[in-house]
This record gives sequence, C-alpha cells and structure tokens, in this order.
Amino acid sequence: MNKTRAWHLKSRPTGMPHIGNFELMESDLPPLEDGMVRVRNAWLSVDPYMRGRMNDVKSYVPPFQVGAPLQGGAVGKVVESRAPDLQPGDTVFHMLGWREEAVAPAGAFNKVPAMGVGDEQWLGNLGLTGATAYFGLLRTADAKGGDVVFVSAAAGAVGSAVVQIAKVKGMTVIGSAGGPEKCAWVKELGADAAVDYKAGPLVKALQAAAPKGIDVYFDNVGGDHLDAAFATARNNARFAICGMIDSYNGGEPASFRYIMRVISARISIKGFIYTDYMSEMSQFYAEMGGWIAAGQVKSRETVRAGLEATPQAFLDLFTGGNTGKMLVKL
Amino acid sequence: MNKTRAWHLKSRPTGMPHIGNFELMESDLPPLEDGMVRVRNAWLSVDPYMRGRMNDVKSYVPPFQVGAPLQGGAVGKVVESRAPDLQPGDTVFHMLGWREEAVAPAGAFNKVPAMGVGDEQWLGNLGLTGATAYFGLLRTADAKGGDVVFVSAAAGAVGSAVVQIAKVKGMTVIGSAGGPEKCAWVKELGADAAVDYKAGPLVKALQAAAPKGIDVYFDNVGGDHLDAAFATARNNARFAICGMIDSYNGGEPASFRYIMRVISARISIKGFIYTDYMSEMSQFYAEMGGWIAAGQVKSRETVRAGLEATPQAFLDLFTGGNTGKMLVKL
Repeated sequence: MNKTRAWHLKSRPTGMPHIGNFELMESDLPPLEDGMVRVRNAWLSVDPYMRGRMNDVKSYVPPFQVGAPLQGGAVGKVVESRAPDLQPGDTVFHMLGWREEAVAPAGAFNKVPAMGVGDEQWLGNLGLTGATAYFGLLRTADAKGGDVVFVSAAAGAVGSAVVQIAKVKGMTVIGSAGGPEKCAWVKELGADAAVDYKAGPLVKALQAAAPKGIDVYFDNVGGDHLDAAFATARNNARFAICGMIDSYNGGEPASFRYIMRVISARISIKGFIYTDYMSEMSQFYAEMGGWIAAGQVKSRETVRAGLEATPQAFLDLFTGGNTGKMLVKL
Repeated sequence: MNKTRAWHLKSRPTGMPHIGNFELMESDLPPLEDGMVRVRNAWLSVDPYMRGRMNDVKSYVPPFQVGAPLQGGAVGKVVESRAPDLQPGDTVFHMLGWREEAVAPAGAFNKVPAMGVGDEQWLGNLGLTGATAYFGLLRTADAKGGDVVFVSAAAGAVGSAVVQIAKVKGMTVIGSAGGPEKCAWVKELGADAAVDYKAGPLVKALQAAAPKGIDVYFDNVGGDHLDAAFATARNNARFAICGMIDSYNGGEPASFRYIMRVISARISIKGFIYTDYMSEMSQFYAEMGGWIAAGQVKSRETVRAGLEATPQAFLDLFTGGNTGKMLVKL
C-alpha cells in the first residue's frame, strides 16, 4: 500500500495560528480503485482564506477537521491512473494540497489546458487568485475604464493581479502595501500610486493619492483600509469585499469612523467568492490567458521549498512575508 | 415690515446636542417681492438627519450656519401671495421649518394635492418619512414578497412605515424597538415579531426571531443593530442603509464583530437618500395614497405643542422620546 506525508490540523488555532497547530503525518493512501488516479504534487498554494476553515464555523466552505489532512490548491502530475481521461504524465490542478501525493476519483482533478505557461500559474493568475481578482474587480465592483480604483494588499497575490487587470482596462489604480520595497513593486506593476500603510495615517495618504476620491475599492484587508475607503469614496462608489485579513485572527472587532459615508456617498458594498462566477470561467481563461501571453499581466511568487515549509509559509501570509503569490515547491 | 420668530443654530454641538445649541430669535421677514409668498407654518418636522447638518462638514445637504435659522420639513398655509400659482389659504409643504412664518419665492413651496388626508401626513407617510421608507425598502433593498425583512427603530417614523409597507407587499417583518410598549406597537402595525433591543443581546434575539435568517435589513440605527444583521443575513441578503442614529452624536466609532459575513453570505449593502428617487415620486404618491386611503398604512405621531418646544422635540429623538413621527404643532 502506498503511503504519503500530509499536513494535518492538530488543533484549532485561537487568534493567530502557530506552528503547533499543524502536524506532519505519514498515512496510507486509499487503494486505487476503478475511475481513480494518483497524483504527485509539484506546487502547493497557501492562502489567507484557509484561516477561516480552521475555525469550527459554517462558512462558504466546510471547516477543516482536527486530525485530518488540510486541503488547498495544488498542481501535480498524474503518476498512476485507472481513469480513461487522465494519463500518467498529465499535469492537473486540484484542491488536495498540503500533501505529497493524493489519490481520488478523476473528477477531483482538472487537466491543465496547453497554454504554454508555467505550472505554478494555475495556482496564481490562472487559478483561484487570478479569478478572484478578475471577477471581483470587473463583476462585483463593476469597475470600468476611467474609474479610480483603490486595492489593498496590492503586493499580495490577489491584489497584484487586481492592479494589473485594472491597468489593462484603463483604470487609475492606487495600491496599498506595507513598506517601501513592496510599494515600489506595486508601482512597477503599473499602479499610478502606492500607499505605504506602515508609514502613517492611511486616510490622509489615500486622500492625497486620490484627491478626487475613489470610484472602486477592492478590499483584501478590512479594518482601517476599509475605513479609509469609506472616507475617500466618491458618490456611488462600489466596494468589492474579497477578504478582511486584518480580522482573520480575531482580536478587537473592526471599528469604523467613516462608515456613515455609506449613506451620504451612496456607497454600494458587496461580498463575493470567485466561485459565484463559475459559469464565466471560460471568459476568464480566454482574457487572462491573452494578457499573460502578451506580457500585460505578470506574476511574481514567493517560493518556499519542500513540504516541511508549508505551515510556516501559511503563517507568514499574516505578517506580510510574501510579495505576490506564496507557493511551496515540492 | 413683518417679523417672525425662528430657531437659530447658536453653536455647533459636539457629541450629543443640548438645548443651549439653539436660540429662539425674532427677525425681520424679507419684503414680499413679485413671485414670492408668505406662509404661516402649522406643523414642523424634526428628524434625526438634521443632526448631521449641525456639523460643519460637507454631506448630501449643506451644513446649517451658526447664527442663521435652522431648516426642516414644514406644512403651512399661504397668508399672502404675489405669485400666480399660490393663493392665500392654500396648504403647502416645504423645507423652511423651525419658524413661524416664511417668505420665499413660490418655487420653495409645494401645494399639497387634495387627497383627503390630514395636513401632518405631508411630513409623515406622504412626506420625506414615507418616501424614505418606500424607496429604501422597495428600490435600494429590492425587497419582494416572501422576503424576511428586519427593520431597526421600527417604532420610529421611517421604521413604522417600513413595517407597514413590507406587510402590504407580503413580506415577513421583524422590527426592533426599545422597551415593551414600543414593541407592542410594532406588532400592532403588523410586524411578525418585535425585538426589544433594551432587553438583552440583539444578535441572539434577532436569530431567535428569524431562525432561517434575514433577506433584507433596513438600517436606521447602525452599530449593534447593523452587526446583528450581519450575523443573521442569509446568502445574498440586501441591506439598505438609511440612517445610523447610533453614531450621529459621535462617541466611539462603530465596531462590528460579524462584518466578515459580508463575504461568506455575499451581502449587498447600499446607502441611499430618498431624493435619489425623485423621478419616481408620482408612483410613490399613488401607491402610498392608496394604502393610506385603504387603512393599510396608518400613522402615529408624537406631537409637541408650540414653536418653543421644537429643539427639545429634536433632542428627544436621540433618547427614544417618540413613537412614530415626531412633530411640533404651532
């Protein structure tokens, strides 16, 4: 019987997670029955949303179970197949990450189309990350050419995709990031302005960068960033709420000094998950694939080496340890 | 030269306003030039939104000026006219309240249609109050028959109209109010449940009243009420943000423990002012007029007597001193 190593949730974190919440275990892989395939993972994704699944609460995805392997985006190669549609050597992306090998029915794996891009792109700009940026900006916030767009965590995986998509579409973009190096990278991506949230009061900095106000806010952070967006919104501004990393680890409830501007500026706010737009994925692949091929959307990854590095890579998401997409290469 | 008495803003309040912020002054009325009319007020409206105009900040209406008369909804009778469209004896509603008499160009006054309703209705269910309830519920929140609707300050002027409109339209309605008497009245209005926010934790009470969650929240209060609505929202819930009386007088910024549910439940939030829907006023008059005539929408007023009582009537809005619409009868 084949064995694999996988990271299990040892205990549910309270507040900020720590390395002791995770445990690397060796376990048996299920037998390869008819219709199933075995995949050896090459790349694992760690994402802030995973923190939510570590709590025992019902959300848009079921919680992780204590004592069971964690899950997450991964790209791997089929090494053994008893399914007609997948052959050994095929590259697939799937959600059975945090482990070296996975055995599951073929339907759990998606064969990557031949698009001439690196495998890791299927976890980044062509994966959950890129789709979240694309649909949140263009559908949820209904952003159009000419809009002034503010995106928080603009040096992060989703934020850096938002910056580039907005520029391709002819918007003015202001991105926030922590520290001068990340801000410089945000400007390299094409942002018209970068706001360093560590350098001083955010409201003042955002209003200086957007003296006429913002039409769109793409929220990855919540808290003070969302409040600064309230303060700076123009009439009929649209906010797409993608994430609130400021609040994922508990602490004081987020407070808002400028929330009443929702009324005076008639702000629209909407939460979304990229899966809300599954029916439009083919349009996303076509458009994003074109931008990547044309060099209009670039990716950058922070890569950690080896399965052992996975939980620390995840933890570092909450202290700004990544620029661009955080990945683990096996 | 004619004189009148009017309440002036003596000083801008900091936090909760007090009676010393207001001053009753006698002043000259401008001469009645061609095209102008003189109106003697019969009813004055006091409304929570006026608090915002007492701050020196740009909002959707310009701030009141220190040393100048306050303004607000009023109904009166024309006593002198140099305009062809208005005759002495005509009843008009207008925005030159907080005073006994007003002289202005005829365009500042709207002659009330003959609908067989009491004059005070033009400040209530057929006025700003009713229009705010109607458009916020049916347009901003896009509430439909079958929806579960939560409305805060349901014993207030706007809230009590929302309860009744929602029932006419076949919705399930939960209203919040402070204390058993107001809650009893909210149920009398037709609400399926009333939640006493003074009686205990709001989240628990709302979730008990709406075990399957809410589809729509009509917000007059902000703060804990809005947070309870976040906690209780069903997927794709729509929130119409009409007011946040909890925050009008400053204090700690509103904080939210459940705001991340905006993402998981894909909540849509939108601020509005009834004037956003001015082009649809004729539909509002037709529909609301019909409901009032049929006895489906009733009004209740808390009436204070005499111009002298105006600022205290206004102040009492912030301590729950009114049930239904707060008016001053001259």
